[in-house]
Amino acid sequence: MNLNIQKLREKYLKKELNVEEVLSSIKEKIEQTKDYNIWIYTLSDEQLSPYLENLKNKNIEELPLYGIPFAIKDNIDLKDIPTTAACKEYKYTPKKSAFVVQSLIDAGAIPVGKTNLDQFATGLVGTRSDYGECKNSINPEYISGGSSSGSAVSVALEMASFSLGTDTAGSGRVPAAFNNLIGVKASKGVVSTSGVVPACRSLDCVTIFTKSLTEAKTVFEIANKYDEEDIYSRVYIPTNKKSKENFTFAIPKKEQLEFFGDEEAKKLYFEAAKKFESLGGKAVEIDFAPFIESANLLYSGPWVTERFIAIKDVITKNEEVVNPTVRTIIKSGEKIDAVNYFESEYTLKKNRKYVDKVLKKFEFILTPTTGTIYKIAEVNADPIKLNTNLGYYTNFMNLLDLSALALPAGFRKNSLPFGVTIVGDKFDEELLFEYSSKYLGK
Amino acid sequence: MNLNIQKLREKYLKKELNVEEVLSSIKEKIEQTKDYNIWIYTLSDEQLSPYLENLKNKNIEELPLYGIPFAIKDNIDLKDIPTTAACKEYKYTPKKSAFVVQSLIDAGAIPVGKTNLDQFATGLVGTRSDYGECKNSINPEYISGGSSSGSAVSVALEMASFSLGTDTAGSGRVPAAFNNLIGVKASKGVVSTSGVVPACRSLDCVTIFTKSLTEAKTVFEIANKYDEEDIYSRVYIPTNKKSKENFTFAIPKKEQLEFFGDEEAKKLYFEAAKKFESLGGKAVEIDFAPFIESANLLYSGPWVTERFIAIKDVITKNEEVVNPTVRTIIKSGEKIDAVNYFESEYTLKKNRKYVDKVLKKFEFILTPTTGTIYKIAEVNADPIKLNTNLGYYTNFMNLLDLSALALPAGFRKNSLPFGVTIVGDKFDEELLFEYSSKYLGK
Repeated sequence: MNLNIQKLREKYLKKELNVEEVLSSIKEKIEQTKDYNIWIYTLSDEQLSPYLENLKNKNIEELPLYGIPFAIKDNIDLKDIPTTAACKEYKYTPKKSAFVVQSLIDAGAIPVGKTNLDQFATGLVGTRSDYGECKNSINPEYISGGSSSGSAVSVALEMASFSLGTDTAGSGRVPAAFNNLIGVKASKGVVSTSGVVPACRSLDCVTIFTKSLTEAKTVFEIANKYDEEDIYSRVYIPTNKKSKENFTFAIPKKEQLEFFGDEEAKKLYFEAAKKFESLGGKAVEIDFAPFIESANLLYSGPWVTERFIAIKDVITKNEEVVNPTVRTIIKSGEKIDAVNYFESEYTLKKNRKYVDKVLKKFEFILTPTTGTIYKIAEVNADPIKLNTNLGYYTNFMNLLDLSALALPAGFRKNSLPFGVTIVGDKFDEELLFEYSSKYLGK
Repeated sequence: MNLNIQKLREKYLKKELNVEEVLSSIKEKIEQTKDYNIWIYTLSDEQLSPYLENLKNKNIEELPLYGIPFAIKDNIDLKDIPTTAACKEYKYTPKKSAFVVQSLIDAGAIPVGKTNLDQFATGLVGTRSDYGECKNSINPEYISGGSSSGSAVSVALEMASFSLGTDTAGSGRVPAAFNNLIGVKASKGVVSTSGVVPACRSLDCVTIFTKSLTEAKTVFEIANKYDEEDIYSRVYIPTNKKSKENFTFAIPKKEQLEFFGDEEAKKLYFEAAKKFESLGGKAVEIDFAPFIESANLLYSGPWVTERFIAIKDVITKNEEVVNPTVRTIIKSGEKIDAVNYFESEYTLKKNRKYVDKVLKKFEFILTPTTGTIYKIAEVNADPIKLNTNLGYYTNFMNLLDLSALALPAGFRKNSLPFGVTIVGDKFDEELLFEYSSKYLGK
């Protein structure tokens, strides 16, 4: 069933369809796709009933997400449903929903279930989970991307109109690219992280996956809300930049682009840039080294310590319960010193000054979302290196306090999708939506 | 000689006085006050001559600081003059002036010399220096306050119209209080720190000492300037808050006020609050615990690591060259881990959310600048504890990203001055100047 938000609303309004029918079609699809390891938990009819009850006697027009099914990455709390972060031993059952989940429910959305992820949101692959490797929606031999693997695939395979992911290193963008979706990685702090299992608490973002840009914008407008209880929450005040008929945008210098041998990806990237040029843009090469230097700090520097802090109790008590790859990464965060922290901060501040100059000169930056895609078997054979490759264009984003939209950008001959990311300053979301809308022609 | 900026300008304009006469009077005063250990270096006539040369054929009206003598704390670079940070072995001779120093010189100001300080700006006392204990301008048995000791005393004793200090923990405010001066501790990043020996690089501010508020504002308007080369520089965009006829301001709850037995200080503090009330204000008690918790992080937490990074080479090669008290403090920064850093950051972010609420409700916060003052002999007998007492109302300021003006607030019976600090949000400087002007009646 087509779960497009605007289409569903029309049908609800015309009474051509009711929410129960939508949920029942989703249930069927869930059964049919069990092999994909998309869900960690799906709600029973009984567990769904209060959400349906809640819509009774409500005016559809007043609830922008009335009866819209959505999926929740299993590191984000849904009241009375277990949160696992893809680690069986970590499981707990929260007494209240995450702030953002509650905002969406208040707008009428219906939670379908909790989705699979790279354990503790540590990974960009979707294979590091106690609940199986989440498979790509287009070709199940391939990775779905992570860490928000199940959230992306649940939307791609029509089990949710939209889904929530999280994004610290690229987890809200990589799975979008691999499943032909929009991924909204808004500025840090504009979507609350209260009720989210931290990865790097100072960097974590909650993200949105949808099939269309209009849906992405609809959901973002509800999801972004100041949360007094979230120490990293920031009021979203859009910059007043407007898209222009003639504009320049930045692309990395040719020799700094990395496609890891994926020539089709390279071709698709330049086609995307060409498309922006056909829309009045002019691509200008910039030095991408400060972005790469920043990206490298995410897993080699002190931010791994935040991951250690987040699961200190679990990993200290019985490290065996943590996925071996995830464990190797997170344990390295225990021994990092504060000298390393501050030296890394100085590097980041220097690089952020460079980014200031770039963003003063250009409307946005256009990068591939990832340089390539891998098969599940390839990732299993070399789990850390291939994962690192996938973060080449994503790991710097939150460290440099940027906003980004991951956009579909065509298909390889084997039908696997390619994606680009349009990058702006913090609070540039409106501008990015405008240019993305030109690009996608909607 | 009265070195008031506005008065000097008038006389220069009327040709009743020339810059050489001013400098010669200062020279005399420098000779007379040698026992105070105010200066580490004063410029010779030959070294002064290019600055005087620079004023030739210039229009006084176009140079807001034409011929105005100023003092520079010796952790801030002045071209071709040694910088020591009060550590003889650390000495180097910079090839260019600090960004802020150059801005002041470009506005016509004349550098008199480099002033004494607590070594590496680590201290609030003014006694921790290879160049002697800097004495209080009113009673030389007492401490001058630090770390910007010489800068404060040089203004108090009429050897400079204004001076530059730095302020990480309170070094631009405590010496103001102890020498009856205005101390401008603007928002982090609005006065460049390029060419300043770092204490805690992420927190350091350059500050201004003057005798009057008008002078403070004049100098601040020139000193605050965006510096592309300073990774922590921020553009100063004043908040558009205006002072009101009737207003509320916050004061710490009575049981959270600390005067360390100094009953006169207590009395003077409440008199200052009463004076603000007589001007239309209403003092309201707030919980001060989040400020105190934040303050305590400055020397017990990871920010000491920044002090270690700043002088790593010196302290690693030959620690004996560092003042023993300073050494003890700074060495403790070597072993702190990144877990401590991030846990401290989370605490700060939580406390900053509390501050957001306070500053939404109140126009400003009024605190003592220090709870008391000590004799040099007392500090020498117990150097760390008494120093800590002096930071009770100052150590949180930069960690919580606040702006502050230290203001004179009367005298004890023994003629020693007391000071209060008016605290606002970052970029609230204009507002603080307005309320301070009401308070000081100028």
